[in-house]
Amino acid sequence: MKINKLKKSVIAAIFMSISTATLANNALVLQTDFGLKDGAVSAMKGVAFGVSPTLPIYDLTHEVPAYNIWEGAYRLYQTIEYWPEGTVFVSVVDPGVGTDRHSVVLKTKTGHFIVSPDNGTLTLVAEHFGIEAIRQIDETKNRLKGSEKSYTFHGRDVYSYTGARLASGAITFEEVGPILPNQVVSIEYQKATEDSGNVKGTIPILDIQYGNIWSNIDESFLTKIGVNYGDNVCFTINQGETQKYDGKAPYVTSFGEVPEGSPLIYLNSLLQVSIALNMDSFAEKHGIGSGADWHINLKKCD
Amino acid sequence: MKINKLKKSVIAAIFMSISTATLANNALVLQTDFGLKDGAVSAMKGVAFGVSPTLPIYDLTHEVPAYNIWEGAYRLYQTIEYWPEGTVFVSVVDPGVGTDRHSVVLKTKTGHFIVSPDNGTLTLVAEHFGIEAIRQIDETKNRLKGSEKSYTFHGRDVYSYTGARLASGAITFEEVGPILPNQVVSIEYQKATEDSGNVKGTIPILDIQYGNIWSNIDESFLTKIGVNYGDNVCFTINQGETQKYDGKAPYVTSFGEVPEGSPLIYLNSLLQVSIALNMDSFAEKHGIGSGADWHINLKKCD
Amino acid sequence: MKINKLKKSVIAAIFMSISTATLANNALVLQTDFGLKDGAVSAMKGVAFGVSPTLPIYDLTHEVPAYNIWEGAYRLYQTIEYWPEGTVFVSVVDPGVGTDRHSVVLKTKTGHFIVSPDNGTLTLVAEHFGIEAIRQIDETKNRLKGSEKSYTFHGRDVYSYTGARLASGAITFEEVGPILPNQVVSIEYQKATEDSGNVKGTIPILDIQYGNIWSNIDESFLTKIGVNYGDNVCFTINQGETQKYDGKAPYVTSFGEVPEGSPLIYLNSLLQVSIALNMDSFAEKHGIGSGADWHINLKKCD
Repeated sequence: MKINKLKKSVIAAIFMSISTATLANNALVLQTDFGLKDGAVSAMKGVAFGVSPTLPIYDLTHEVPAYNIWEGAYRLYQTIEYWPEGTVFVSVVDPGVGTDRHSVVLKTKTGHFIVSPDNGTLTLVAEHFGIEAIRQIDETKNRLKGSEKSYTFHGRDVYSYTGARLASGAITFEEVGPILPNQVVSIEYQKATEDSGNVKGTIPILDIQYGNIWSNIDESFLTKIGVNYGDNVCFTINQGETQKYDGKAPYVTSFGEVPEGSPLIYLNSLLQVSIALNMDSFAEKHGIGSGADWHINLKKCD
Repeated sequence: MKINKLKKSVIAAIFMSISTATLANNALVLQTDFGLKDGAVSAMKGVAFGVSPTLPIYDLTHEVPAYNIWEGAYRLYQTIEYWPEGTVFVSVVDPGVGTDRHSVVLKTKTGHFIVSPDNGTLTLVAEHFGIEAIRQIDETKNRLKGSEKSYTFHGRDVYSYTGARLASGAITFEEVGPILPNQVVSIEYQKATEDSGNVKGTIPILDIQYGNIWSNIDESFLTKIGVNYGDNVCFTINQGETQKYDGKAPYVTSFGEVPEGSPLIYLNSLLQVSIALNMDSFAEKHGIGSGADWHINLKKCD
Repeated sequence: MKINKLKKSVIAAIFMSISTATLANNALVLQTDFGLKDGAVSAMKGVAFGVSPTLPIYDLTHEVPAYNIWEGAYRLYQTIEYWPEGTVFVSVVDPGVGTDRHSVVLKTKTGHFIVSPDNGTLTLVAEHFGIEAIRQIDETKNRLKGSEKSYTFHGRDVYSYTGARLASGAITFEEVGPILPNQVVSIEYQKATEDSGNVKGTIPILDIQYGNIWSNIDESFLTKIGVNYGDNVCFTINQGETQKYDGKAPYVTSFGEVPEGSPLIYLNSLLQVSIALNMDSFAEKHGIGSGADWHINLKKCD
């Protein structure tokens, strides 16, 4: 008996130590429009590290263009599902810092948490992964001690601090603050549609590094209009009323299936229809941009 | 008795393992002017990881402009207090690598360590956080084995190696090397002053990402001249003798209190007087730069 | 007896927990040509974190110019030896993604692992560190579950996933897949040579941040032609048949030994002959680039 009690207490002590030290932490993943040229992101990480020195801290990107809420929304949508359930994302694209936009934590139906101003950043995450619950951050409790006079760096003083506390288990989701209705501030955009074999969509974003064109047209639309690998797709790209491109390209699984410099249609890493030139930049060559007023129309070529 | 001894030895073994594995480490935070395009920063991290695989390694920034010691000094000043006591910063902005500038570790009165060449990089940290002690790195002991023939990469061979050993507890501060006088090589700059309601200061740095103007004028100067939130501040900006801007703006807590494109005065994340345009770049629009010859004069508007 | 068994089982339990939690992991170090503007690198890290939440994940660089396999090869060569044996590097510069280039893991004779397409990226690592063994990734086993429809992001779905499993000990090197011959796809380049005191080499890469010129001429060539510190080296730089520079500079150990703006010869961090201006950019001032057609000729000045 004595031995068993000993054993249990020892094992309990061990596992408490281990779990406090290394097992309790979900990852904290940071996104901002701050860039990496100054100390702002590092200050955010210092605050998070101060909350828990064993918290795994990672980056989504800090190169969201300044004030570009739509792109912040897209980067979250593009990335969160590749992190495990329980991961806490902090997103700070916050031109309205200090105004009355809500500071919230959204829990998706997939079990991911996003700490962000509710300013449109949550548009795509809410739509694609679903809202399990939203809580407003109670800044009387969830704010870095001594930061009360700083009104312009909530990313450090409130969001990183709260995100780190949530990820490390220092607070529960309930302790973030009061619950809000399951609804976020949303940016309106044109969804993809199909009519008699013609598919319409928009260009939510470019694959900047390579100059590829990403659409919001899911793979399923290609199936619907009978496009299989190897088929040619005829498409136009317009900015508002102005046609920027009219051409066709084969639907392929790898860039190398067409000659260098030739156009191709492929599924990007989100399984959405995309357009590229093999070893060249489609966006640069044809002057294509992204945003709500950039439209793609496509159909199977005759 | 036997049981108790058992228990103690088991628990001792456990805690030794745990602390060696995960609890002994302070963070190591790296700053350089190397950029991230090549393998230099990664080599520094590899050396640190080789010292201790459980050492938490983070970045301050690696985008300090090449050879810009002043900006390196500013980034340390801006950031270190958001990391816990015991954190070890390595800063490598070192145009004089291989010359007779000292390689040192400065311990601040706040308990932070900065590993750096003593070439001006320590100016602001020494002034704002105080010098607890400075030690010169003894390179006969604190240098990566096998790196003796490399004269131009002390950041990897000496600074990262020594910083990692200090942060992980492999050496104590005393074992860094011989103590030096409590004094660093300092870059001279104009401090903020006030006379009859007129405040003068400089622009030590820009908030590059957004184009905001940061001054070295503390919040306390506004209090002294009776400026409260909502008051208008009249100010000029000069480069040397040339006036670059003459205008006024309200002192506010959030950018959204003025219309888009309008100027405003706010406290930045260091609680110093700063100037911005809401949703636009003040620096770009008005051609403002930073450095010792950029002056701000401000007063409460009549 | 009972006690001893208890003790052993407790200790076994402890060490299993600890080693699973914190000790089993080698570092995973990622290199890509993706840039950091979008979510691609973060998705790769999320996949790796999902494999093992205690895996130490670092970056080599993500700023390899798009499709530039040579530069990817050089960055690996420049960096891997500064990471400990057992470190797993993932390199994704993969213009042929989806084509029939092999996806492999190369184990060097120094005990480092590189996960990469076999498309030339392994040229310099194989040559300088030697091939212990190469295995082809068996994608039926080593591929992120549910990613089968994604053909264009092997970096995330195959390489990061496999690298994380290897680094964390979830699979052994043998379990990567079938062994291949000890041979990689290599990019041809001119090696350094010496003839009657004249040394010829190429400029494999620039030290971009500072504008320094790096050659592929090892320190040993200077010894061979009798150049010691302080001696003047006479050299020319050609692009193809066109001479771009003809001058001389002293061979020094630190930049500060020549006046600001003056040229100097030094050994870079890989102990290869390099050319710089003190506090200025040699590459920019004299229009020097890098690649197979950039040649350096040098000798000891008369």
